[in-house]
Amino acid sequence: MTKEVFERLLHEKQYKAIKSIFDTMNPVDTAALLPEFEDRQLVLLFRLIPKENAANVFTYIEPEHQQILLEAFTDTELENIMDDMFIDDTVDIIEEMPANVVERMLAAAGDKRNAINVILKYPEDSAGSIMTLEYISLYPTMTIGDALKKIKSRGEYSETVNICYIVEKHKLLGTISAMDLLTCDDDELLCDVMDDNPITVHTLADKEDVAQLFNKYDVFAIPVVDKENCMVGIVTVDDAIDVIQEEAEEDFQKMAAIAPTDKPYLKTSVWDLWKVRIPWLLLLMLSATFTGIIISSFEDALSRVVVLTAYIPMLMGTGGNSGSQSSVMVIRGLSLGEVEAKDIFRVFWKETRVSVLCGVSLAVACFVKILLIDGMLLKTDGVNELVALVVALTLCATVICAKLIGCVLPIAAKILKLDPAVMASPFITTIVDAVSLLVYFSVARSFIPGLS
Amino acid sequence: MTKEVFERLLHEKQYKAIKSIFDTMNPVDTAALLPEFEDRQLVLLFRLIPKENAANVFTYIEPEHQQILLEAFTDTELENIMDDMFIDDTVDIIEEMPANVVERMLAAAGDKRNAINVILKYPEDSAGSIMTLEYISLYPTMTIGDALKKIKSRGEYSETVNICYIVEKHKLLGTISAMDLLTCDDDELLCDVMDDNPITVHTLADKEDVAQLFNKYDVFAIPVVDKENCMVGIVTVDDAIDVIQEEAEEDFQKMAAIAPTDKPYLKTSVWDLWKVRIPWLLLLMLSATFTGIIISSFEDALSRVVVLTAYIPMLMGTGGNSGSQSSVMVIRGLSLGEVEAKDIFRVFWKETRVSVLCGVSLAVACFVKILLIDGMLLKTDGVNELVALVVALTLCATVICAKLIGCVLPIAAKILKLDPAVMASPFITTIVDAVSLLVYFSVARSFIPGLS
Repeated sequence: MTKEVFERLLHEKQYKAIKSIFDTMNPVDTAALLPEFEDRQLVLLFRLIPKENAANVFTYIEPEHQQILLEAFTDTELENIMDDMFIDDTVDIIEEMPANVVERMLAAAGDKRNAINVILKYPEDSAGSIMTLEYISLYPTMTIGDALKKIKSRGEYSETVNICYIVEKHKLLGTISAMDLLTCDDDELLCDVMDDNPITVHTLADKEDVAQLFNKYDVFAIPVVDKENCMVGIVTVDDAIDVIQEEAEEDFQKMAAIAPTDKPYLKTSVWDLWKVRIPWLLLLMLSATFTGIIISSFEDALSRVVVLTAYIPMLMGTGGNSGSQSSVMVIRGLSLGEVEAKDIFRVFWKETRVSVLCGVSLAVACFVKILLIDGMLLKTDGVNELVALVVALTLCATVICAKLIGCVLPIAAKILKLDPAVMASPFITTIVDAVSLLVYFSVARSFIPGLS
Repeated sequence: MTKEVFERLLHEKQYKAIKSIFDTMNPVDTAALLPEFEDRQLVLLFRLIPKENAANVFTYIEPEHQQILLEAFTDTELENIMDDMFIDDTVDIIEEMPANVVERMLAAAGDKRNAINVILKYPEDSAGSIMTLEYISLYPTMTIGDALKKIKSRGEYSETVNICYIVEKHKLLGTISAMDLLTCDDDELLCDVMDDNPITVHTLADKEDVAQLFNKYDVFAIPVVDKENCMVGIVTVDDAIDVIQEEAEEDFQKMAAIAPTDKPYLKTSVWDLWKVRIPWLLLLMLSATFTGIIISSFEDALSRVVVLTAYIPMLMGTGGNSGSQSSVMVIRGLSLGEVEAKDIFRVFWKETRVSVLCGVSLAVACFVKILLIDGMLLKTDGVNELVALVVALTLCATVICAKLIGCVLPIAAKILKLDPAVMASPFITTIVDAVSLLVYFSVARSFIPGLS
C-alpha cells in the first residue's frame, strides 16, 4: 500500500477506509509506513489502527517516531498501549526514551511496573536485559488436561505458548512444547512427559552467547534462571535473531573501520555517516606516519636502487590481505564460539603452517613473475635476479608475520577482555605495513651490495 | 560429558551406563561428541543412543560421519532412521552423500520418496530447497475443537504445530497459531479466528530473502506457495537462522579475500585453509603489477623529489580504508535488503556528499600534520608547503574516488546479477591503489616545478 493512497484518503477524511486497510496490513508494514508522514498525520493515522494491532505496530516503529507518538498520547491511550505490549518490548522502548517520557511510561505501567524495573536492572548485554517475564509456568503434578485449562485462561498474557515451563517452588524442572501438549493424552502427568534437561542460561550470560545457543540447539525459546536455578524469564527466538544480526553487522563495521551504528544505510544522514567514518580514517592516516618515517630513513637506499620502490605497494597490499584473512577467520570464530581464548596455541600453530605454505607459494610465484613479466616482458629498468630474490624473500616473511599477527591480536584482545573485532583488518594492516617495510629494507641491505 | 568417560565405559563394555547417559544428553551435544571416536566405536556408540533420539542426533552429525554411519547401517536401521527424520533434514543429508549412499537412502525412504524428490528438484538457493512438507493443514469450516482433534492424531508427523495452515482445495487461506488454538473457544470456526493475510513466499524465492522475512516479521514459520497460491510447504525459523548465519559468514570471507568455506576454523585442515586463501592472494599480488608499472614510470620524478615516496603507503592505505567503508556498508545493505539496485543514484549522491566531507577534513588534517609533525617535529628532508599541498590534495581526491568506486561497484555487480560481496575491500583496494598513485603523480607534476 503506497503512501499516496493514504494521503488521498487522509485528505478526503475517509477514515473508515483507512481503518479497513490497516486491518488487512501486517503490523510490521504499517509500522514502516507511518514514519513517512509528518508528526500530526502520524498521530492521526496511528489512532486509526485497529485497537488489537496498535501495541504490536507501536513496538515496530523506530524510536524517534515512538517518542512523537508517546508525547501525543493521552494518559488513557498510553495506559492501553502499555497494557497490550509485552514487557521486553516495553523495556526496549524505555531504554531509548528521554527521562520525562520514561517517567510517564512508568506511571502508566500499572502492575507491570515492577517487572519492567526487574529487567531494567540487568546489564545491557546480558540475557536478563533481553528476556521477557511473560511465559506460561506449569507444575509437575498437573496433567496435560490441567495444563491446557491453565493455558486457555492465561495464554494470552504470555509471549509464547510454543514452549511452557514446569516449575516447583520457582525452580525450573523441565519444559513442554505445544507439540507435546497438543498430542499427548489428557491424563498424562507433566512430570512424565516433560523434557527434564532443557537448555538454560543464567541471567548475566552474554546475550551473544545466548543467541548462539538458539543457532546450535534449534530451539524457540530459552529459559533464563538465576544462581539457584530459579526461573526468571525467557528469551525468545525473534530476539535471538536480532542479536545475531546486530552482532554480525557490528563486526562488519569494525572490520571496515566504521564506528558501530545500527541505522539502515539509506536512513542515516550524510552527517552521521561522516561521524562514524572519520575517526578511524584520521587515526589510521596519522598512524601511517610510522611507515613514512621508515621510508624516509631508507631514502638513500631507495634513491640508489629506485626499482625497489615499485614493489612497496605489492608487498604492503599482499601483507594486508594475508593478515585480514587470518584475523577475520579468527574474529568470526570467536564471535560464533567456534574458537576460544584457550585455543590460542592451536590457532597459532595452525596459522604458522598455513602462513608458511602461503608465504612460500606466493614467494615462488612472485619471483617468477618479476623475472618473466617485469623483467623480460615489461623490461623494467633495474629488475634482476637479486631484486627478485629480495622482493620474494620479503614477501614470504611479510605473509608469515601478517598471518601470525592477524591471528594472535584478536585472541589477545579477547583475553584482555577487549573486543576482538577492533583488532580487525585496518588496525592489523597498519602494523603489517610497518613490519613489511622494515623486513624489506633489511633484506635489501643484506643482499644488494653497496646498500648497507 | 567428556570423551574420556565414554572411552572408559566402552572399554569396560558398560553399555547400559552409556545408554543412560545418552538418555540425559541433548541430541546436539551427543552429535558433537560422536565424531571424536574412530569409525568402529562411532557406529557402536550410535547404536546405544535411545531409539527416540537417534534420528535427531543423526541430523546434527557432520556429513563425513553421517556417511560412515549410513554405510554401516543395516537396511532395517536405515529405514528406521529415515522414517523418524523430517524430510527437509533428509534432503540436506542426501545432497551431501555420494551416489551409492543416495541410492540406498532413496530405496529405504518408503512413502517419503516422492516428497524427497519434490524438494530435490528445486534450485539450490530457493525457498523450495529449504522447506519441509510436514506441516498441519486444516480446513476453514473446522472448529477449534475439530482442529485440536486432528492435531492430536497427526501432530507428531509435523515439524511444528506452532503455526498451522488453513487450506481449501490446496489454496492457502490463512494461518492459526498454537496460541490461538489453545486459547480460543472450542466451537469457534477456524475461518473466524485465523490470520487471513499471512506472509508467504514463492517456491523459487531466494532463500536469503526468505530468511530476512523472518527477521523483519518475527515469525516462526513461513508458508511456501506456488504461482496459484497453492500451499507447497513451510520454512521454519531454525532453517532461517542457518541461512542468515551462513550468508553473513560468506560475506565476511569474501570481504577478507577468502574463498567461501562452511567448516568451522579449528576443524579445517591446514591444506584446506591454504586452498581457500591462496587464489585471491595470488590474484591480488599479480594485479599489483599495475601499481608497480605506475611507480616505475614515475621513477625519475620520485628520484628527484624523494620525499614523495614516503607518503605512498599513507595515501594508498587511507584510500583503501575509505573505499572499504563504503563498499562494506553498501554490500551489507544489499544483503539485508535495505539497499536495492534501483537505489544506485541515491547511494551515489549520498556517498558523493559523505566523501567530500571526509576527503576535505582528512586533507586539512593531513596538511597540518605534514607541516607540524613531519616538517617541524621530525625534520624530514624535503618536506615543505608544496609537498604538503600535493599530498593533501591527492588525499582528498583519493578518498572521494575510493568512496565512489566503493559504493558503485557492489551495486553494479548486483545489477549484472553477480555477487556484490565479490566487489569487496581487497578488489576495490587494488583499483583504488592504482587510482591514488595516478592522481598523486599528476598532482605532483602540476604543482612541483621541474617535475613534468
